[in-house]
Amino acid sequence: MAETFHQWTLAARPLGRALAETDFDLELAQLPELRDGEVVVRTQWLAFDPALKGWMENIAGYVDAMAIGDPMRGSGLGEVVQSRHADFAPGDIVHGPLGWREMAVVDAALLARVPDGTPPTASLGVLGTTGLTAYLALVEIGKPKPGDTVVISAAAGATGSVAGQIAKLAGCRVIGLAGGPEKCAWLVDELGFDAAVDYRNDKVRARLRELCPDGIDVMFDNVGGEILDDCLARLAVGARVVICGGISRYNFDPRDAGQMPPGPRNYFNLVFTGATMQGFLLPRYEAQIPLARRRLTDWVGSGALRYKEDIQTGFENAPRTLMRLFEGRNFGKQLLRL
Amino acid sequence: MAETFHQWTLAARPLGRALAETDFDLELAQLPELRDGEVVVRTQWLAFDPALKGWMENIAGYVDAMAIGDPMRGSGLGEVVQSRHADFAPGDIVHGPLGWREMAVVDAALLARVPDGTPPTASLGVLGTTGLTAYLALVEIGKPKPGDTVVISAAAGATGSVAGQIAKLAGCRVIGLAGGPEKCAWLVDELGFDAAVDYRNDKVRARLRELCPDGIDVMFDNVGGEILDDCLARLAVGARVVICGGISRYNFDPRDAGQMPPGPRNYFNLVFTGATMQGFLLPRYEAQIPLARRRLTDWVGSGALRYKEDIQTGFENAPRTLMRLFEGRNFGKQLLRL
Repeated sequence: MAETFHQWTLAARPLGRALAETDFDLELAQLPELRDGEVVVRTQWLAFDPALKGWMENIAGYVDAMAIGDPMRGSGLGEVVQSRHADFAPGDIVHGPLGWREMAVVDAALLARVPDGTPPTASLGVLGTTGLTAYLALVEIGKPKPGDTVVISAAAGATGSVAGQIAKLAGCRVIGLAGGPEKCAWLVDELGFDAAVDYRNDKVRARLRELCPDGIDVMFDNVGGEILDDCLARLAVGARVVICGGISRYNFDPRDAGQMPPGPRNYFNLVFTGATMQGFLLPRYEAQIPLARRRLTDWVGSGALRYKEDIQTGFENAPRTLMRLFEGRNFGKQLLRL
Repeated sequence: MAETFHQWTLAARPLGRALAETDFDLELAQLPELRDGEVVVRTQWLAFDPALKGWMENIAGYVDAMAIGDPMRGSGLGEVVQSRHADFAPGDIVHGPLGWREMAVVDAALLARVPDGTPPTASLGVLGTTGLTAYLALVEIGKPKPGDTVVISAAAGATGSVAGQIAKLAGCRVIGLAGGPEKCAWLVDELGFDAAVDYRNDKVRARLRELCPDGIDVMFDNVGGEILDDCLARLAVGARVVICGGISRYNFDPRDAGQMPPGPRNYFNLVFTGATMQGFLLPRYEAQIPLARRRLTDWVGSGALRYKEDIQTGFENAPRTLMRLFEGRNFGKQLLRL
């Protein structure tokens, strides 16, 4: 008799509104028979990323559409319990697109072993897509030069905190925007940011005026909305604006449902400053990934790059754990331990 | 007794609304005494550019502020009638920032002689800032590759029509957006565009879907607003969006007065396609100007580059002539013959 396991599936599309628990169904599934080239993984950790809401909404063209009833997607880490691929054996700790499933049959080509000497969960964050995104988006689009003023939104988030530290390594003055005094203190005291702005309690425009008297050379945006506009209003000539994420866009006014939330009013400042705004799409930088991963690994090993994990527990809490990202409640890479 | 002449001055700032004739005052002025290095020019032609409204509104940081009562700025062409600079003699035909004045005392360093063998008014358009903007914005930001699909908004305007023809020279498929069948026919029949979309009578989104099945590689935008959004919705992976102008933004809803009009809702498509959006600011490309001017001159001389002039007459009509730009009434470079 086939083994059974729990999985979360997509029950409803949260287009134009906040996520709800009713967007997800928990069901019992049966493990299919293993074919050549496949591996069975028992999930130990799941990692969460804001892009997942876009996949649920089916608005991003760069991934295959998700249908109602499909298992939820997502990166995870687990132990190989069965293998029909020569590269993997039971007991191996691997990471890859496991989905929100207690057990997963996965094409071995999509899995990678956790590198020796690195903390396993780092492969889900600072040494995974999150860190690669931070490094490549900052370096390839932001093009930081020593002495540049770099502003990072959602700076205490998994991507922003890594991007900010790499900008410091590049010789920049780095200012982080984050929600609440605890996150702001962490940026300055622990990560070495030059300043932090608490968007919940500070006047963002006034603080940016004080902190960026010569304008912003690199804006690394994970948020969109008003914060992006406030930064566009202060661009230096020749600035680079990296559009990495838009977390504020995911819970927009329900009266706007069915259409996109408003765009940045101040985009025309790109003309007055000759500035560049570019979206970051990881697959375009495939060739640079091995180099980026080596550098991130070295910096994590030497302590030059620090990271934080926000660890929740219990497979039954997967939907609530994803929601934390959109409420600004996570502090560090959002993980779930099964 | 000093010579007197007429000039137009700024009477009111048209921020957040359409231009009105009451934004301008016509007054009599006295020619100041000529100093060393200066030249007196009798204005024969004035040229008009949408950027002038931004200068009147005083929203662009890249030019010195204009005060109420200041003479209106603008490029012009005229005859030297008096000179205290060795490079210019009475009778020379020169162009430069003459302003809306029948006569102007100008620093000779700001003037240039009309090159031999070129039509004098071409220096105010296709061989002046307009043509340089079209060439440099397309080439340096749009980076057209043979086979690319290039979409140009306000394609029958002075800048758009030149940019589109250069994109054809670069081996691209070029689609122009223009208002009305006459302009659209001119783009296809006279300038060799591959297709034109009449934004007043066609369904823009549907037509772009038909005409750009593989997406838009280069969007050259002079308009902003809904047309920009429609194009952002169809970007190809790795697309370049050139923000050259935003004519639709100049007459926005008066309920929005005091703040910028809405930004492009679809800017986040930059992430889904890894696309770049950059503003064009001519002073950043100073080093490339001589080369660009030589190429434009060669192409105009050989007939490879065609241009149209919209000629109004009478100094008293200067304000009404500027307004034509914002009503989409001009067809070609907007000029006024004194």
